[in-house]
Formats: sequence, structure tokens, C-alpha cells
Amino acid sequence: MPSEIEGVELKQQPILSENERIAAQVRSMLDENGVKAVEFLGGPGCGKTSLIECLIQELRSKYKIGYIGADLATTSDTERISKYGVPVVQINTGMECWTPAFLVKQALEKLNLKELDLLFIENLGNLICPFEAPVGAHVRVGVVSVAEGEDKIVKYPKPLMLADVIVINKVDLAELLGINVEKMVADAKKVNPKGLVVVASAKTKQGIEELVEVLGL
Amino acid sequence: MPSEIEGVELKQQPILSENERIAAQVRSMLDENGVKAVEFLGGPGCGKTSLIECLIQELRSKYKIGYIGADLATTSDTERISKYGVPVVQINTGMECWTPAFLVKQALEKLNLKELDLLFIENLGNLICPFEAPVGAHVRVGVVSVAEGEDKIVKYPKPLMLADVIVINKVDLAELLGINVEKMVADAKKVNPKGLVVVASAKTKQGIEELVEVLGL
Repeated sequence: MPSEIEGVELKQQPILSENERIAAQVRSMLDENGVKAVEFLGGPGCGKTSLIECLIQELRSKYKIGYIGADLATTSDTERISKYGVPVVQINTGMECWTPAFLVKQALEKLNLKELDLLFIENLGNLICPFEAPVGAHVRVGVVSVAEGEDKIVKYPKPLMLADVIVINKVDLAELLGINVEKMVADAKKVNPKGLVVVASAKTKQGIEELVEVLGL
Repeated sequence: MPSEIEGVELKQQPILSENERIAAQVRSMLDENGVKAVEFLGGPGCGKTSLIECLIQELRSKYKIGYIGADLATTSDTERISKYGVPVVQINTGMECWTPAFLVKQALEKLNLKELDLLFIENLGNLICPFEAPVGAHVRVGVVSVAEGEDKIVKYPKPLMLADVIVINKVDLAELLGINVEKMVADAKKVNPKGLVVVASAKTKQGIEELVEVLGL
């Protein structure tokens, strides 16, 4: 990902510019077909897939939903999502730490966009790199789990300020882990200029209705 | 980080070669001063700092210990560690998703290596990129928390195969979260050719003695 660190030559700005050009093409493909795309980003095991499962259960009677999932190596997330009868496409990046927009564009070409209203795009488990490289989604949801520790939002401010919505997930574990959720919410509002923060638990379904509302779905 | 993804020009191999050259210099500086360096790598909130705190408590009567911590934005980990009376150096990378060896080299220059036996280096919270870029440590410990989900090892095989030891942390939460720890251990042994796996909990101190032994400390 791009860098201004001295002493090491990181020629990545051209890649990101090129990525943005392709992300704009992805956005056009979505808009031409009337598909709203919501991207989920966050570290390993923060609960991106579980939140998407909750949203699919909540919304599948209202929208025709599709799913694109990015992972280093496995197809386990797409397998989980396909159980809901939703068309899915898997992206595997190997060792790559972000999902280039051209892979999402290729994935879109495998879906019948005319038959979809809503697309969930799940990025790689990484709380840094994918935030910098938009893939063309209309809304970007950054997810942090309370199980990652109360300090996680202040520790990852630059990525999280690039999200449209921040979800503080696994809140059912907060009491057990001694996490001050109010502090995390305050941190999220401070870090993120849009200030849209949802406290949720994919396990207990807390906050899912609010997330639906915040996403305008 | 390096990539073979088609359609996007990622000229990163030269950076990694240069990084390895500097990592070798770091190793020489450590060896010349008789300092053993143990690096901790893993995703956000997997418990790297807590494990290092446990090791410091266990080992501070035996070794003169130092600490270098890398973080995007804060100094909270170095503040935690400095409470143990250990010399610390903070690296902040901003948006950078890995810790280049030259920053570790600069950090070493701020420590009095002649007065140290053991150095803990905590890399950024990222379960992908930092694994590819050694900073010169003698041992690399990859940490995954059971709170990240039972599938996390199979989902991040390429990074984790580059670790010398894998720690499955926060095992005190395994029962509550319904995590099959034996499966995670088997996955870790399959993924990692060295097969050194320690099941631990920084909270209950489970596995800390075993980790000390595995690290040869």
C-alpha cells in the first residue's frame, strides 16, 4: 500500500490511481443495473461474514441479493453465504493484502447483475490496506470487534476514517471482557468524520435493525 | 506487499530484497551485542502485547529485556510495556501495513544494545503483510486468537507458514465461543512446516511456560 516512509521506494500511487479508475467502472456497472453495493472491511475474525449473514436474513424478502467474498486462500465464507440461496463469487488473493478493484470487476461479470438489487462485498481480513483501495461499492462499512480490545479504534484511525459506517461488533462479549463500549463509540465518532457508528452483535442480533437503517436499506 | 496479481503493476520485489538486506544488518547488530530478538506478529487485538507482558514478567529476573513496538498511530503498547521498567522504542507507520527493517534498525540505534540480552519486537496488527518482511529477529511468533474464529489458521496459511512458532491465544474464551482448539492446533501444524504450536492465554497464563521453553528462553 502507498507509503511516504523514507528510505524505501514504494511506487504504489500509480497502482492506487489505476485501482480507482477500475473502481469507477465497477460503480458504473452497478449503477447501470440498479444494484446497490455495500462493502464490509475489517480485521481477521471481526465478524464481517456473520454481519452479512444477519443482513441477508433480514433483507432477503425485500431485495435480490448477491455476494462477493475475498479471502487469501479459502472458500469458506462464500460457502457460508451460499446456504442462503444467494449467488456468490469467490475472490482468492493468495498473499495479497487487499482486493484490487479489477478482481471485483471480474467477479461482477460472473454475476447476473440484472437480477440483483443489493450486493454485499466482503473484503479481506485486514484492518489496514483494503480501506485505502475502494472497489466501487456505494457504502463502506468498517468492522471492529470488542474482542480485539477497547483500544482498537484509536489504534487504526487512518483506515477507519475512510469507512462510511463503523460497526462495533460482538458487543455480547463486552461485559465478560471488561470492554467500555461507550468509549469505543466515542473513539469511533472522533475518528470518523461521518460519525455513523452502530453497536452490534451478529450473535444476539443487537444493532442489526439499526445497521439496516443506517445503510438506507 | 509483493504480488503476482495480473493487470496491476506491483513493483515490490525490489523493496523486499532491500528490506532483507537491512534485516540482515539488524541481525548482525543484535548478534554483535549478544541480543536475542523475538518478533510477535498477528492481527489486531490477537494479544501480542499481552503475551509479551507475560513473558517479561516471567523472564525479567533472568534477562535484561528491551522492547520495540510498531503501531499505526499510538504509543499505547510501548506505554504498557514501559511500566515493567523495560527500555522501549515506538515505531509509528501511519498508514503503512508492515514494519520496514530500516525502522527497526533506527529503533535499535536508540537502545543501548550492550545492556540487553533479549529484545521483543512487536509488529503491526496485521495477519498478512508483516509476515513477508522479516525485520531481522531470530524467532518469529505468529499469534492468532480463538476470538477471531476457529477458521483463522486455514484462512491465513501463507503468512502463518512464515512464522517459526504459532500461538493460539485467548484460549480461556474457547469454551464460551464454542471453539474447537484441537482443530486449530491441527490446522496450525498442517500450515506451518516447523509445527511449533503453543495454546495460550495471556489472561490465565496458560501456556506461557511452554512458550518460554519453545522460544529457548
